[in-house]
Amino acid sequence: MSVTAAKGFTAAGIAAGIKDSGNPDLALVVNNGPRRAAAGVFTSNRVKAAPVLWSEQVLKGGEVTAVVLNSGGANACTGPQGFQDTHATAEKAAEVLTGHSAGEIAVASTGLIGLLLPMDKLLPGIEKAAAALSEHGGEKAAIAIKTTDTVHKTAVAGGDGWTVGGMAKGAGMLAPGLATMLVVLTTDADVEASALDAALRDATRTTFDRVDSDGCMSTNDTVLLLASGASGIAPAQAEFAAAVQTVCADLARQLIGDAEGSSKDIRIEVVNAATEDDAVEVGRSIARNNLLKCAIHGEDPNWGRVLSAIGTTKAAFEPDRLNVAINDVWVCKSGGVGEDRDLVDMRYREVKITADLAAGDESAVIWANDLTAEYVHENSAYSS
Amino acid sequence: MSVTAAKGFTAAGIAAGIKDSGNPDLALVVNNGPRRAAAGVFTSNRVKAAPVLWSEQVLKGGEVTAVVLNSGGANACTGPQGFQDTHATAEKAAEVLTGHSAGEIAVASTGLIGLLLPMDKLLPGIEKAAAALSEHGGEKAAIAIKTTDTVHKTAVAGGDGWTVGGMAKGAGMLAPGLATMLVVLTTDADVEASALDAALRDATRTTFDRVDSDGCMSTNDTVLLLASGASGIAPAQAEFAAAVQTVCADLARQLIGDAEGSSKDIRIEVVNAATEDDAVEVGRSIARNNLLKCAIHGEDPNWGRVLSAIGTTKAAFEPDRLNVAINDVWVCKSGGVGEDRDLVDMRYREVKITADLAAGDESAVIWANDLTAEYVHENSAYSS
Repeated sequence: MSVTAAKGFTAAGIAAGIKDSGNPDLALVVNNGPRRAAAGVFTSNRVKAAPVLWSEQVLKGGEVTAVVLNSGGANACTGPQGFQDTHATAEKAAEVLTGHSAGEIAVASTGLIGLLLPMDKLLPGIEKAAAALSEHGGEKAAIAIKTTDTVHKTAVAGGDGWTVGGMAKGAGMLAPGLATMLVVLTTDADVEASALDAALRDATRTTFDRVDSDGCMSTNDTVLLLASGASGIAPAQAEFAAAVQTVCADLARQLIGDAEGSSKDIRIEVVNAATEDDAVEVGRSIARNNLLKCAIHGEDPNWGRVLSAIGTTKAAFEPDRLNVAINDVWVCKSGGVGEDRDLVDMRYREVKITADLAAGDESAVIWANDLTAEYVHENSAYSS
Repeated sequence: MSVTAAKGFTAAGIAAGIKDSGNPDLALVVNNGPRRAAAGVFTSNRVKAAPVLWSEQVLKGGEVTAVVLNSGGANACTGPQGFQDTHATAEKAAEVLTGHSAGEIAVASTGLIGLLLPMDKLLPGIEKAAAALSEHGGEKAAIAIKTTDTVHKTAVAGGDGWTVGGMAKGAGMLAPGLATMLVVLTTDADVEASALDAALRDATRTTFDRVDSDGCMSTNDTVLLLASGASGIAPAQAEFAAAVQTVCADLARQLIGDAEGSSKDIRIEVVNAATEDDAVEVGRSIARNNLLKCAIHGEDPNWGRVLSAIGTTKAAFEPDRLNVAINDVWVCKSGGVGEDRDLVDMRYREVKITADLAAGDESAVIWANDLTAEYVHENSAYSS
C-alpha cells in the first residue's frame, strides 16, 4: 500500500519535533529509479506557500528524486525567509541522498499559515528520515503527513506486473482547485513525464478537483506522481491513466470521509446538464450552500435549499423543469413539490443528492460534507 | 418609525394563522397618496418565488397602492398553484381597498420554500389587516414579517418636511443579490417612479447587496420604495437619494446584527483595490470563507485564512504586497507576518478586517457574520 507499493521506492515517516505533540511530522519518499519521471498539480490559489512555489519549479524539469513532506506548519505567507527555508530543506535532502541536486527534490508542507518552520528541528529530521528509509515505509510516511486527519489515507491499483500506489492527507480547507491536501502517488510503470502529466491532470480534474468539503481553497495543495520504471513494464496510456484515476478517486473519497467535524458525506450528482461545466458549476453551488449543509446534518431533505443554490448559477436550465432527488426520492419535480419528503431515509453517513437540470446530456459528481457544530468547534477553538 | 413615519401611509400587522405559533404573520402597507409612485429591487436568484414574479410585473407600471407581506411561508417552488395564490392575494387586497386593481398590489412572502400557503387563512387575514390599518401601524407591520428574526427592524431619515422610513426582516439566507429579506421603504416626498428607482438601486448596491451573512441567496428577496407625495415637498434628487441610502444602510446593519446564530458582526473593508469590482469580489470571498468565519467566532486573528480567501479571487494584486489588519492591528504585512497577533482584541461583537490590496485607489465594505454552532443548530434542527 501507500507510496511503497510500487517497486523502486523507499519511504520513511518520523517525528522531527515540528509538532509540539511529538507526533510524526516528517515524511521522505525516494525514487530509486531506474527512471525518475514526475508530474505535479498544485493549488490554483494565487497565494501559494513557499514549498508550492519551489516544487512547481522542480517539476518543470520532469524529474524528481525525492519528496520531503512536513506537517505542523504550512510555510505559507512567510516571505523570503520561508522560501529560503524550503530551499534549505531541498539542499539538505540532496546532501543526505548523495549524488543528487536540490533541483530534483520536491517539498510539501501543511499546517498553520504564517509561521516559519523550526529549521533547527526540520533539518536534523531529514537525516533521521533518510536513515529510516525502507521499502515498507509507506504507511509511516502516510501517518507523518496527517494534521487534523483522524486516519491516514492510502490506496493502490495497477495492472499486470505494475502498480500505482499513493498516500494523501487533508481534512479541512477542502475545495476545488485543489483541496487542502498533500498527495504523493508512485508507480513502477515505465512512463515518461509527459504521459504522467496527462494521466495526473485527467485524474485530478474529476477526483480531487470535485471534492468540496468546506469551500475553502488552500495555499499548499500539492499532488505529485513519481515513476520509477522499476517494473520494466510500459502499460498502454489508457490503462495507466485508469489506474491513476482509480487511486485518486479512492483517496479523494477517503478525504471526504474524514473531513473535519463532518457527520455526512454528500454525493451530489448533476445530470442532464447542457455542458459538463454547467454540471460542475451547479454541483459546486449546491456543495457550498451552508444552509443546505446544515439541513443535511439535521437529516432534513430540504430541497428548497437545493433549488435556491441552483438558482444562483449561470447554468442552462428552466426553473420549472428542475427535478431533485434526495436518496433517490424525487422530492422536487418540475420545480415544485414532488414525492413525499417523509419517504427520504437519511440515517446513513452517505447522502445522495441528484439534481436534474433537464437541459442536456452532461453530468458531473461533486463530493461534499455537511456543516456541523463540530466543524465550527474544530476551526474556532484553536488556530489551524 | 417604520413604514408609517412618512405621511400618506397606513399599515397593519396581524396574526392570520399562517404560522402554527399564532404569532403575527401578515402585514399590509397602504399608500393613500396623492402620489402612488413605486420602485422595486428583487432577488437575482433565477429560482424566484411566485410573489417575486408577480411583484416584478406590478412594479413595471411604476405605481403601487399597497403591499401585502406574509411570513410563515415563502410561496417559492410552488408551481402554477403558487402563482395563482399570489394573484388571489392581490385580488383580495384590491377588493378590500375598494377602487384599486390587483395590478397595483405588490406581494411579498417569506418562510419555508416548497409549501403552498394556507389561503383559507391568508385571505380572511387580509380583511382583518385592512380593518386594522392605522397611521401608527408601522411597528406592528414590522413585527408581522419576522421569521427567525429576534427583533423587528425599522429605520427613518429625511429632510426639511419630508421623511423616508422603512422596515426589514431577514436573519438567514443573507447574501448579495440580495439578502434573504423583505424590505418596504416609504416616503412622503414628492418623487416620481424613475427617480425612486435610481435612488433605490444606488442605495441597495452599497447596502443590502454588501451584506453577506451566510453566502446563501434567497428566492424571495424584495425591496420596495413607495412614495405618497403627501408632504408636498420635492427634494433635490441627491438629498433624497442620501436619505434612502441612510435608511437602507441602517436596516442592512440591523440585519447583520440579528443574523441567525451569529456572535460577531464582521466589517470587511477592502482598500487600495484597482477597481471597486475587485474590492467587492475580495470582500465577498473573505466574507464567505467558513474557516475564517469559525476563527472569528473563536476570537482567533487567523490572517492566513484571509490571505487564502483573497488568493481565490481574480482581483489585481501581488501576493507579497498584501497587508491585513484585524481590529486595526496589521497582523500581515507584505504578504507575511506583521504585528504581533496577540495585540488584537476581539472581545467585542463588531470585528473589523481591513484588506489592503496595494493595487489602486478603490475600496468597498462588506458586512458578514461569524459561523457558530448556534447557526448550525438553528438551520439543522428544523426546516426553515
